[in-house]
Amino acid sequence: MPVGEFDLIDRIRARARTRGDVVLGIGDDAALLQPQPGCELVVTADTLNVGVHFLEDTAPEDIGWKSLAVNLSDLAAMGASPSWCTLALALPQSDPAWLDGFIGGFLELAQSAGIALVGGDTTRGPLSISVTAMGQAPAGRAIRRSGAQVGDDLWVTGTPGDACSALHAIWAGVVPDPALRRRMNRPTPRNAAGLALVGLANSCVDISDGLLGDLGHICKASGVGAEVMLEQLPASRALSRFAPAVRWPWQASGGDDYELCFSAPAAQREAIVQAMAGAQTQATLIGRIVQGQGVIALDGDGQPWNSGRPSFQHFS
Amino acid sequence: MPVGEFDLIDRIRARARTRGDVVLGIGDDAALLQPQPGCELVVTADTLNVGVHFLEDTAPEDIGWKSLAVNLSDLAAMGASPSWCTLALALPQSDPAWLDGFIGGFLELAQSAGIALVGGDTTRGPLSISVTAMGQAPAGRAIRRSGAQVGDDLWVTGTPGDACSALHAIWAGVVPDPALRRRMNRPTPRNAAGLALVGLANSCVDISDGLLGDLGHICKASGVGAEVMLEQLPASRALSRFAPAVRWPWQASGGDDYELCFSAPAAQREAIVQAMAGAQTQATLIGRIVQGQGVIALDGDGQPWNSGRPSFQHFS
Repeated sequence: MPVGEFDLIDRIRARARTRGDVVLGIGDDAALLQPQPGCELVVTADTLNVGVHFLEDTAPEDIGWKSLAVNLSDLAAMGASPSWCTLALALPQSDPAWLDGFIGGFLELAQSAGIALVGGDTTRGPLSISVTAMGQAPAGRAIRRSGAQVGDDLWVTGTPGDACSALHAIWAGVVPDPALRRRMNRPTPRNAAGLALVGLANSCVDISDGLLGDLGHICKASGVGAEVMLEQLPASRALSRFAPAVRWPWQASGGDDYELCFSAPAAQREAIVQAMAGAQTQATLIGRIVQGQGVIALDGDGQPWNSGRPSFQHFS
Repeated sequence: MPVGEFDLIDRIRARARTRGDVVLGIGDDAALLQPQPGCELVVTADTLNVGVHFLEDTAPEDIGWKSLAVNLSDLAAMGASPSWCTLALALPQSDPAWLDGFIGGFLELAQSAGIALVGGDTTRGPLSISVTAMGQAPAGRAIRRSGAQVGDDLWVTGTPGDACSALHAIWAGVVPDPALRRRMNRPTPRNAAGLALVGLANSCVDISDGLLGDLGHICKASGVGAEVMLEQLPASRALSRFAPAVRWPWQASGGDDYELCFSAPAAQREAIVQAMAGAQTQATLIGRIVQGQGVIALDGDGQPWNSGRPSFQHFS
């Protein structure tokens, strides 16, 4: 049964949780939101397209989850508290079952992150999902890419490389380990960690395009260099079954991880450990900020290593 | 020459104007923006897809302009001042000339409306443009759909029907009047009018899906009915060449107009005229809010008229 656009919006509205600072939610020409005094608004926008950002046969629940997760991850990297989001959804045809699954996954994550869906648009077109997420951070306190200092420790959350390894398995026609596949389809945005890093970290970036490439953005913005010790990169249990030569490229340069890479003064090492424990987030010391420019990855012998893979770029 | 994603973002960044309240613009994980104290944030998101919202051969400058215009129109309908926007752009392939044209049209309108592009995303996929626009309005003062009162005058800005008539000409294989075609490709968002209506209008909606259908949203949200006098609908010079029976359906129900329909107390009639003159916007009295529900369009004899066309709905 075809579902009209207004019915579809009603379906979404009926299931979206709200927040006390949503003065007027879905249903007018625009939403009305009450920003918190003394805060800056933190805004990011990311799109997922079928065949590029997720495989054709991905479950709608996973697509819904991931389309919000990639945006929450950007807020996490700034140390912002998630507040509100909009969803622009293009669908090739009306499919209530698909839509219910998609919205279910999207709102499951929205609820756990405390972000309210306040507006958006549904159109007909090839499957594409654009989300704009808005967060808030006390004025002047958001963590930028440009604050890294020579001598800073370099940290990474979670276990990068899992998502990329799952994708490689699928490309090779192999069924990936379920834990790795879940990391690809249901990334965990590190919002609790990002919030806990405010006042501790000097710089932060989310490594959606791969650790070394995104760390390069910190270096460029901060006018510094970085050294990453590949042997210190944390590997998940499933990933540690692969030899270093196999998994290092995934861990160091694989895209689609939504972990945070951040730098912090060595004097904050103990505070970071405690903050990450409070945020229930694994964080691992993987290197340091140095003078110079660019990122050098060092193997177990302290020799420079080149994966041969640049950061993932669309259009490259 | 293929252009990488980071180059493409640099191209956009180099041309985007900023504002004093943009603490950190394009180039980090998220933008940092300073909301105005005492204001609510007004947020809307709209998508344009090729073949649905614009014709395949539309000039990139026009697509850029229109993708922002449809969002500015939503801010106008709330009486909000445009502040910031994000742009999610999916492109089938890298095409610097197309992109320069698109960004040119987008930023031409952004500059004239005083809205800053602060972030976004470029991805590979079928051409699709999603914009989220953020505006601000003094707390409690935004104009909603739900405020219409029985006895209110009904007004419309500009000359609805122009865009729809141009589309019909093209569908019929006829070259449309250039003025009508321009109205389709370069709609003028009515932000000056919307701002001037704060404190005067009881309700407002933008008529992107057609006057009668969108007015129906005011009626539903306000628990009232509406009467529209078709003979009072303002026709542009180009449109007035068509007989009423031909143009009324376009004027009353044609989508793709980004005019405002608003209701205001009859006692404000003179104030409305002055406010619209100040906003350099044509506004025409076209009917009134009545008890009951739904919208009735009356012909020159005061008889109910049925265009046979419901409001435009995707998926219907």
